[in-house]
Amino acid sequence: MLCVNVELKERRYPIHIGENLLTETSVYPLTAGDKVMIVTNETIAPLYLHTVTATLEKIGCQVSSVQLKDGEKYKTLDSLNEIFTALLRENHGRDTILIALGGGVIGDVAGYAAASYQRGIRFIQIPTTLLSQVDSSVGGKTAVNHELGKNMIGAFYQPISVIIDTTTLNTLPKREINAGLAEVIKYGAILDLPFFEWLEQHIDNLVALNPADLQHCIARCCQIKADVVARDETEKGDRALLNLGHTFGHAIETYLGYGNWLHGEAVAVGSMMAAALSELLGNISKKDVGRLEKLLARANLPTISPDNMQPEDYLPHMMRDKKVLAGKLRLVLLKSLGQAYVATDTDKSLVLDAIRACTQFD
Amino acid sequence: MLCVNVELKERRYPIHIGENLLTETSVYPLTAGDKVMIVTNETIAPLYLHTVTATLEKIGCQVSSVQLKDGEKYKTLDSLNEIFTALLRENHGRDTILIALGGGVIGDVAGYAAASYQRGIRFIQIPTTLLSQVDSSVGGKTAVNHELGKNMIGAFYQPISVIIDTTTLNTLPKREINAGLAEVIKYGAILDLPFFEWLEQHIDNLVALNPADLQHCIARCCQIKADVVARDETEKGDRALLNLGHTFGHAIETYLGYGNWLHGEAVAVGSMMAAALSELLGNISKKDVGRLEKLLARANLPTISPDNMQPEDYLPHMMRDKKVLAGKLRLVLLKSLGQAYVATDTDKSLVLDAIRACTQFD
Repeated sequence: MLCVNVELKERRYPIHIGENLLTETSVYPLTAGDKVMIVTNETIAPLYLHTVTATLEKIGCQVSSVQLKDGEKYKTLDSLNEIFTALLRENHGRDTILIALGGGVIGDVAGYAAASYQRGIRFIQIPTTLLSQVDSSVGGKTAVNHELGKNMIGAFYQPISVIIDTTTLNTLPKREINAGLAEVIKYGAILDLPFFEWLEQHIDNLVALNPADLQHCIARCCQIKADVVARDETEKGDRALLNLGHTFGHAIETYLGYGNWLHGEAVAVGSMMAAALSELLGNISKKDVGRLEKLLARANLPTISPDNMQPEDYLPHMMRDKKVLAGKLRLVLLKSLGQAYVATDTDKSLVLDAIRACTQFD
Repeated sequence: MLCVNVELKERRYPIHIGENLLTETSVYPLTAGDKVMIVTNETIAPLYLHTVTATLEKIGCQVSSVQLKDGEKYKTLDSLNEIFTALLRENHGRDTILIALGGGVIGDVAGYAAASYQRGIRFIQIPTTLLSQVDSSVGGKTAVNHELGKNMIGAFYQPISVIIDTTTLNTLPKREINAGLAEVIKYGAILDLPFFEWLEQHIDNLVALNPADLQHCIARCCQIKADVVARDETEKGDRALLNLGHTFGHAIETYLGYGNWLHGEAVAVGSMMAAALSELLGNISKKDVGRLEKLLARANLPTISPDNMQPEDYLPHMMRDKKVLAGKLRLVLLKSLGQAYVATDTDKSLVLDAIRACTQFD
């Protein structure tokens, strides 16, 4: 088992990474008598709800649960309200601990519910997808979507612990493993060239779910993210670097309607667009763009814009990005492979050129 | 003009109290070019929206606004979403400043919207009711209601400034002035015997809206609250004292349906019940209970339970109070007039007796 600590101003919390942790009582920061509510979805519940409940009952907790529908399109205020209703029906107080058992959607909705219920109760993340294990479960960003924008409503709210059981990846559809690898590759591209090179050597093992390589990879991603979050919890600066490809990617997700493309797939194409723009600005070489493209392709990820989306469709959605300041687009771009920066007020025609470079015209 | 500062761990913010402050550009912490969104309601908009907009435009701000329906029953996730929709439609970014112009409902909903929009934007409180001026606009508690409980969903989120224009009270219905006085009297009862005695001498002036006495009274209440909040921003301890009468009061509001009794009216009766319970426990004298009752009555406030509510109707609602810990009721009671404490695990039959003491049986 590996452990990464997230250091915040006022406290720290651990991320445990290993096999079969769901049944490992020692990793849960809970004691007999604790009241917990597990938030999960209809897909995850039949697979793992019983296991986690049994472990918590062994600790001596009072356990109840609520199941949301599965999918990004249920990442809404309505789902949030379902959690509140379940909590209130059973008279849960401020001392209840919420447990998010599922992927990024469950983590984001349950985390925001924990931030908001009675103005804040404790919560634990148990991410069951690669994407949530390497990204969304770490760092305390919680949110729901609005029909006019993704993740527009939420809070910065940190869990008391993250428990990553890599065996849960065995039940994850291949497409979602690949989507998670988009965020993994992103970490290498923005902040860690040696890790990018390690990925070039081990990407096939990761696609094949080799346990040792998976643990190393997840721990490395969590460590990179934990370091960034420790420096900048509420995204006043450096934390924005984690959003490589996300401004383009969110435009794809919003344009296609949430859930048609997976977040990681949109981020893969978005990362290519950011790389193409970085090349247009003279930062990185065509060869580096090619390395990124090849790595993404080996993880079975898309690298060009969706068929039914035109280059002109991107900008209106991109202008709603949370990084926009004073009406000006701010984009995460690459200074070199392994080093990202935030570009302010990039010429919109260049942005459009970069999008075109990643679009297949008939 | 009077000014009270709220000292928080990480920053401080001012509360400005005076006549005709809505038109006073110097009290707004804004500069030319700032983008602001005013959140108000259909009742307040025709009275003051134009005035505030004109002042902000004089500063050079870009001003837009959204109007919610008026009343406690609109303190919901749906109203919250109306604010988000308005913000997103106009592409408001993280640098937008939200302004709450209205009573407690507007302040609570707009404050929670500011806490949640893009995970947090700045906001300013301009409370226009006595209740919100002395209580809800200060201290950073924001929330919406759930059909199963009042203020159950929200955040601790502090404004960057509070602007209290006492002339707005001239357009406030008398019933709401009185409701505000319930919270004023509460401050004296829980923490400040000299202020309670000052109120016994000046309550008629306050009911008659004497400007000098109003300003003194509001500033004193804000100072008491600011001191408590500085000691305990997120209600781990002392801050709970501010809830004298609120656990009983919330039961009344929830039982009758939000908006039938005003919050202050419910708090008045709740304070009487807390005083009656304090007497039953041997803390305070019958004479002190009588002083409280008389002061509330002089402010035209109810002091007995609603006709159609039975003593037995209280406890189920009271058990959902946010102060409940490990399934046990915690109540704010009086050690003496001017000194409150949190009582844990009070005998429920005594609680019922206190409720009965404030119930008129046919």
